Amino acid sequence: MAQNTRIESDFLGEKEISNDAYYGCQSLRAKENFPITGHTLNIDLIRALAMVKKAAAIANYKTGQLEEDKKNAIVEASEEIINGEHIDHFIVDSIQGGAGTSMNMNANEVIANRALEILGREKGDYDYISPNNHVNMAQSTNDAVPTAIHLAIMMRAERLLDVIEHMEEAFKEKSIEFDGYIKMGRTHLQDAIPIRLGQEFGAYARAIGRDKKRIRHTLEDLKEVNIGATAVGTGLNASVEYIEHVVKELSEISGYDLVSADNLVDATQFTDSYVQVSASLKIMMTNMSKIANDIRMMASGPKAGLYEIKLPGRQPGSSIMPGKVNPVMPEMINQVSFQVYGNDLTVSLASEAGQFELNVMGPVLVYNLLQSIDIMHNGFKAFTDYCVVGITPNKEIMENYVNESLGVITALVPHIGYKQSSELVKEALLTGKGVRELILEHSILTKNQLDHVLNPYEMTNIGISELPEA
Amino acid sequence: MAQNTRIESDFLGEKEISNDAYYGCQSLRAKENFPITGHTLNIDLIRALAMVKKAAAIANYKTGQLEEDKKNAIVEASEEIINGEHIDHFIVDSIQGGAGTSMNMNANEVIANRALEILGREKGDYDYISPNNHVNMAQSTNDAVPTAIHLAIMMRAERLLDVIEHMEEAFKEKSIEFDGYIKMGRTHLQDAIPIRLGQEFGAYARAIGRDKKRIRHTLEDLKEVNIGATAVGTGLNASVEYIEHVVKELSEISGYDLVSADNLVDATQFTDSYVQVSASLKIMMTNMSKIANDIRMMASGPKAGLYEIKLPGRQPGSSIMPGKVNPVMPEMINQVSFQVYGNDLTVSLASEAGQFELNVMGPVLVYNLLQSIDIMHNGFKAFTDYCVVGITPNKEIMENYVNESLGVITALVPHIGYKQSSELVKEALLTGKGVRELILEHSILTKNQLDHVLNPYEMTNIGISELPEA
Amino acid sequence: MAQNTRIESDFLGEKEISNDAYYGCQSLRAKENFPITGHTLNIDLIRALAMVKKAAAIANYKTGQLEEDKKNAIVEASEEIINGEHIDHFIVDSIQGGAGTSMNMNANEVIANRALEILGREKGDYDYISPNNHVNMAQSTNDAVPTAIHLAIMMRAERLLDVIEHMEEAFKEKSIEFDGYIKMGRTHLQDAIPIRLGQEFGAYARAIGRDKKRIRHTLEDLKEVNIGATAVGTGLNASVEYIEHVVKELSEISGYDLVSADNLVDATQFTDSYVQVSASLKIMMTNMSKIANDIRMMASGPKAGLYEIKLPGRQPGSSIMPGKVNPVMPEMINQVSFQVYGNDLTVSLASEAGQFELNVMGPVLVYNLLQSIDIMHNGFKAFTDYCVVGITPNKEIMENYVNESLGVITALVPHIGYKQSSELVKEALLTGKGVRELILEHSILTKNQLDHVLNPYEMTNIGISELPEA
Amino acid sequence: MAQNTRIESDFLGEKEISNDAYYGCQSLRAKENFPITGHTLNIDLIRALAMVKKAAAIANYKTGQLEEDKKNAIVEASEEIINGEHIDHFIVDSIQGGAGTSMNMNANEVIANRALEILGREKGDYDYISPNNHVNMAQSTNDAVPTAIHLAIMMRAERLLDVIEHMEEAFKEKSIEFDGYIKMGRTHLQDAIPIRLGQEFGAYARAIGRDKKRIRHTLEDLKEVNIGATAVGTGLNASVEYIEHVVKELSEISGYDLVSADNLVDATQFTDSYVQVSASLKIMMTNMSKIANDIRMMASGPKAGLYEIKLPGRQPGSSIMPGKVNPVMPEMINQVSFQVYGNDLTVSLASEAGQFELNVMGPVLVYNLLQSIDIMHNGFKAFTDYCVVGITPNKEIMENYVNESLGVITALVPHIGYKQSSELVKEALLTGKGVRELILEHSILTKNQLDHVLNPYEMTNIGISELPEA
Repeated sequence: MAQNTRIESDFLGEKEISNDAYYGCQSLRAKENFPITGHTLNIDLIRALAMVKKAAAIANYKTGQLEEDKKNAIVEASEEIINGEHIDHFIVDSIQGGAGTSMNMNANEVIANRALEILGREKGDYDYISPNNHVNMAQSTNDAVPTAIHLAIMMRAERLLDVIEHMEEAFKEKSIEFDGYIKMGRTHLQDAIPIRLGQEFGAYARAIGRDKKRIRHTLEDLKEVNIGATAVGTGLNASVEYIEHVVKELSEISGYDLVSADNLVDATQFTDSYVQVSASLKIMMTNMSKIANDIRMMASGPKAGLYEIKLPGRQPGSSIMPGKVNPVMPEMINQVSFQVYGNDLTVSLASEAGQFELNVMGPVLVYNLLQSIDIMHNGFKAFTDYCVVGITPNKEIMENYVNESLGVITALVPHIGYKQSSELVKEALLTGKGVRELILEHSILTKNQLDHVLNPYEMTNIGISELPEA
Repeated sequence: MAQNTRIESDFLGEKEISNDAYYGCQSLRAKENFPITGHTLNIDLIRALAMVKKAAAIANYKTGQLEEDKKNAIVEASEEIINGEHIDHFIVDSIQGGAGTSMNMNANEVIANRALEILGREKGDYDYISPNNHVNMAQSTNDAVPTAIHLAIMMRAERLLDVIEHMEEAFKEKSIEFDGYIKMGRTHLQDAIPIRLGQEFGAYARAIGRDKKRIRHTLEDLKEVNIGATAVGTGLNASVEYIEHVVKELSEISGYDLVSADNLVDATQFTDSYVQVSASLKIMMTNMSKIANDIRMMASGPKAGLYEIKLPGRQPGSSIMPGKVNPVMPEMINQVSFQVYGNDLTVSLASEAGQFELNVMGPVLVYNLLQSIDIMHNGFKAFTDYCVVGITPNKEIMENYVNESLGVITALVPHIGYKQSSELVKEALLTGKGVRELILEHSILTKNQLDHVLNPYEMTNIGISELPEA
Repeated sequence: MAQNTRIESDFLGEKEISNDAYYGCQSLRAKENFPITGHTLNIDLIRALAMVKKAAAIANYKTGQLEEDKKNAIVEASEEIINGEHIDHFIVDSIQGGAGTSMNMNANEVIANRALEILGREKGDYDYISPNNHVNMAQSTNDAVPTAIHLAIMMRAERLLDVIEHMEEAFKEKSIEFDGYIKMGRTHLQDAIPIRLGQEFGAYARAIGRDKKRIRHTLEDLKEVNIGATAVGTGLNASVEYIEHVVKELSEISGYDLVSADNLVDATQFTDSYVQVSASLKIMMTNMSKIANDIRMMASGPKAGLYEIKLPGRQPGSSIMPGKVNPVMPEMINQVSFQVYGNDLTVSLASEAGQFELNVMGPVLVYNLLQSIDIMHNGFKAFTDYCVVGITPNKEIMENYVNESLGVITALVPHIGYKQSSELVKEALLTGKGVRELILEHSILTKNQLDHVLNPYEMTNIGISELPEA
Repeated sequence: MAQNTRIESDFLGEKEISNDAYYGCQSLRAKENFPITGHTLNIDLIRALAMVKKAAAIANYKTGQLEEDKKNAIVEASEEIINGEHIDHFIVDSIQGGAGTSMNMNANEVIANRALEILGREKGDYDYISPNNHVNMAQSTNDAVPTAIHLAIMMRAERLLDVIEHMEEAFKEKSIEFDGYIKMGRTHLQDAIPIRLGQEFGAYARAIGRDKKRIRHTLEDLKEVNIGATAVGTGLNASVEYIEHVVKELSEISGYDLVSADNLVDATQFTDSYVQVSASLKIMMTNMSKIANDIRMMASGPKAGLYEIKLPGRQPGSSIMPGKVNPVMPEMINQVSFQVYGNDLTVSLASEAGQFELNVMGPVLVYNLLQSIDIMHNGFKAFTDYCVVGITPNKEIMENYVNESLGVITALVPHIGYKQSSELVKEALLTGKGVRELILEHSILTKNQLDHVLNPYEMTNIGISELPEA
């Protein structure tokens, strides 16, 4: 046995552990068993686990199960983690068999050993403070981990919602700034009828606002936690008083208004509340990918594309083509979308694989869900600050498209009918003449009437054009 | 030209059409262009289109745009379709290019021709009633079709919600019926601690109830319709009065409390409200697939499986193995789940592919969304009536598992600690002795204490076992 | 009991069946149990089942297990189905619990009853010819159905491959036709450097050719069939001679060069060969969706888009906007892509859900796989004939883009370096001047040199421009 | 300006860079633009980029475009990276806009600066060795990065294939070890007929072998590289000789037998070869998830499950239930499956999003593809070594199931028919009597006949039981 190591054991045998390590035997087993992604746990998942441990210790103290000095030490150790300390002692991989037993035991062991140290005892002195008997008292992985997952999702999602709001505001401001710019609306990528650039950006802002609301709504269900459910949801080895205490304490610690799930058996085996959050993220990325595509198409060019808007240049776009600048920020948004789509599938499959009293696929589920939240957060922030706020309109080009367009004839349909209008468009395309020109040539309307009816700006508002006397 | 045909034309040329047909030239073009799935439109989508046409005709009449006799004829023709007539004149395929122009024109043509007939005129006399100018008056495919899709989803989903409630009730009744049956809870497919069969079925009922609520919630957003948006959401060729009228009329016709979308540009180009419905269906099937799996595993056997419950025999299970009966109803639920998962992906991809002012992928989107709703409806009904209500418990087998199990030792952890308990389990597995036996053998607890602490039924409720005096 | 009915029974009880029906008791049970999609089986799946039954009857006759008259009648009845008769007696739904027992029994019953009729006996006289003992002799659903599925996929895929080849040819011809047309290449939707329209279409043709090859390759594995595996792959109640005969007969009947799977246990429980086919379809649609998007973007306009190519007008594109023609054929291709993506997910999930000796999710799997094949077949045919072959180039517009473009400067990088080139592009964008103009203005190159180096057509071939003396 | 920094500039402006850094201005811009996943590039992707740069430098030297001293320095710098040095100077995020321009420029800059240092020059002295003009000579991101991606996938996949072979071997050995163990085969989770445990594991080994072959096959297509395609596939600024040289050099450097893609335009815009690799990974995980599920079910128990096999105990399975050991290794395999499924969707979506001459979504694509390869590698290794090799059979339990089972009656069907056999099973289930007992009771067969026909071991081989004289 090396100098700076200690020996720990569980019912499967002994393990030698560095004396510097707060983690113990079971964390080490897990690290060896699961060298999968190379990514350890999200920091807020670690912090949330510590919140659960702190709350449980206080609750167990209040119900008389845990002695005061042990409670105090566990609470202090947990608070250190909540404050961001000891994070590197959480060594288990994000993908791990066992429903999170490994991450729970990693938390139990780190807190037990740090608590022992606080009390001036040796690490590994589990007879005094045991990861299982004391830190995990009245808990199972099956309630402690899901409860921590709920907290972690809410904590990360809150940051995301702030950034979404920031992005929504940026689009709203653009919609006001761009309100005076007329451009051709397009359906099927074909010229349709005029619309204002501000209306486009206003639609984007609204869709984003709806996404924000939808995500926020799905978070509400996460306030129902299953702490107290213990192993299978029946609450064995917990008590009603304990549950009341632990939920109340955890609410205070976390700042979320938590409630105990009505039916703990249900809450321990079904994970639809996670899938629901993931779905709301995916739905948002469905919208965002569409927005990114629109922006990339509008900015296409500069000579052989639409070039209706200009994006801020963020980096040289090509290692070979000089002066090329690419729409890298919306391209990044598309990629974040594809990642979130994939993650959502993983989350859904993991959820479907629950069996009997537990879903053991929680680790891969929360790994993907938190990644989705975080890359959306990071991506939106960069997209907003580095792209959206700096978009500028290309007025002249947009107006040219409107002026050359044939789609404006739609405003005449109430007056000359769909059929005659169609024939005029056909003639215009064949002859290269404009719609206006042809209408005058065929004496269908007078110039005065045309000026009145074919007013592009008016076409961007609800209403039927009125035809003045010829 | 054949005897019983008429010639119709549009700006692309002429088409010969059977005089029996209410559909016209453009429906026929679409039928030729898109011989894809072989499935025509969902009947409620057809009915919903007719509702939109009826409402628009009345609104156009009220704003003075449409003459009374034409309005009356269009309304009468539409009502016939709403009542299920003329459905076979809707000939276009469910997958069609063009954002639904083909289905919209199919409705416009059928209604125009039937209205002409009602007025004693020849089919095809479009100078009098034109599919475009009169039936489609103040509408575009881009508002008429999405509005009809909203209605169709709500109509089909209502039927689904009724069946979900029926299924939820069946599970609730089973949870009461099964409340006295103790069985082993399982986590990781490994023996955990006792639970009651009624608690299992109660958890299923609750998850289903939550799914019901979630689906219902997503339908709310569909009450916002974009009728009046016309081509690109700007409302060109509609009027504010018309929009007020058409939404009010459509509410009355459909029975849904519709409102006009706040931002019609947004409502015309984003389809997240559909993805949201689809996601809620998928989430439900995540739960249902888990429930189906649990039921299949509990019913496994009869000799080499768990065999804790028996399912009603619905059909001989094998063409070769005599007397075999398989869990075909939950197997069907699993398959419906996989179908709904796939459909949800299609819906999401179709939604992501929107561009500029319109999402042209609506047809494949609604085809999949309505299929999901319908197969869930059909599947749940069969599953409930042919399987759930007839499930019976296998009391003796369940009790045997509990009695033989080692997991009950969990109740002793608060009294003898995790470590000693683990050693006892290890010894039990090695020696084949029971946990009870070993505890007495090692004089850890007295028989009286054991009887009190190791009461399986008590273990299924929240609480810590109390240890009487030795 | 009604006049025209007969009573059939199985070990679950009796059923009254119309005397017109060739199907029997178990088909009827299945129809009642699974009213899910409303779609009955694919016709080639029905035909393939009949091929299996015919081959098995001959093999059983040759091994002495089946009497000659029964064999003859079963063979004749099967041949009728192979020729397309009696299809409407296949009444079971495409989604069905039970791994295909219902479709297998539907085939067994139809063939038994038709064979009895051929022999001048009453339908239902199963003591003489039993669906289980005679038609299903030496078979299980678990080998007969997968074998039929293999055949059905190959039969449908063959039609698909023909259409893919037809489409590939069309693109190849276009690539030759368009070889002289220069256009701007685009990366990131930004102007890059010139390319020939023929090169674009040539790339499409090549990708399609690769897809064809990939699909064809995956079909090879389907020639390994598990007929003879019976219930769990061990071949109980089959004989080695029977297996040799049945594979040989089935090869002759089907025209495919079948072989018996090396390991029948493996072949009965794993379905990766199906997932592989589905994956190859999805991969093709990944390419096709990209091609459809490119075509839609190139055809965008006519005034406010790229408008580099023109698509044949297939139908009026709008119910409100006169003269509008949309790219409905490529839009349909996009939708087929999304459908195939969703179907592929369903196929994958169904495959993953196999358990122990069998995958019971076969019905939903094959339903989706055959739908993918069929809609690709139908979609490609329409796309090729109604769109691809009629595409025409818009030479003038393409040349204008090239002439105005700044990306041509890339050809100068070997001569003046990336940095100076970049500065020139920047200046060109700021001043609106052309690259050519600026180079002359700054006396960087002579006119003669420029004419030589900036030759757009040359830029579309491999090579570094050579700089003549100034 | 700080002491230890230098100023670099590109056409967008200046950046201050630490003098310790080999990366330059554009890498830094990219790092700022894309703070998305927090994961930098896969080490083999970095190494592969360096291989491309080395090969290009040699090729450019051979065609006379690059001076010898510059070539030598670039080659030496590249070799250092290939050997694993300077990896921390690759600072760009795995998800990045711009098709990989950032990762390409990161490589160009690190190599340029290290080469300058080798030549005794200052970092940033790009007039002497420029990232664009010299390191990137005759290349574009659009050929250099895809070529590097091909190499990286092959390099990582090779490691994976070794581990797959190791796992296949382990299953093969188990199939031999377990060949004498009879167990009940199960279909639909219901008792079917006997099979040998060795047959199960043999089927697993075969499926894995097929997966290995399939993955290997998809790698073949990656040997076609597009280096020389430059910006849009036309080869502008490359030469035919250069392409010949660079492919040959890169083959030598990498050890892969590379060829130049036949059609470089195709090879630059389509990414189906990646999707194909990803699909083959997903298909394998479809099989592996099924295998993991089977193993988890067979190991279920120990008292209330099947418990046919025992898995090595790898870690305590519960923080609350003493002595519990969970099947954590196969659970990890399931989670890896779900992750790979999700990644495959991301890969497919990224591929579908290619536009015109390029797919700009490469970064997210390769990030997911390499993650799939790596977690499969890591997961399979752990699963094999920590679980598969240590699985032991539970002979007694398996035999008990076979002896109690009713499914063995299937062997009697050829002798007494399906109908009578079914009735016997029904009676057995009702009375609790065994099938054997009932056959004797009803004098259907003699004891001697039964002993012969109902031999479970014989039932696990192909064949029809023969009935001796009564």
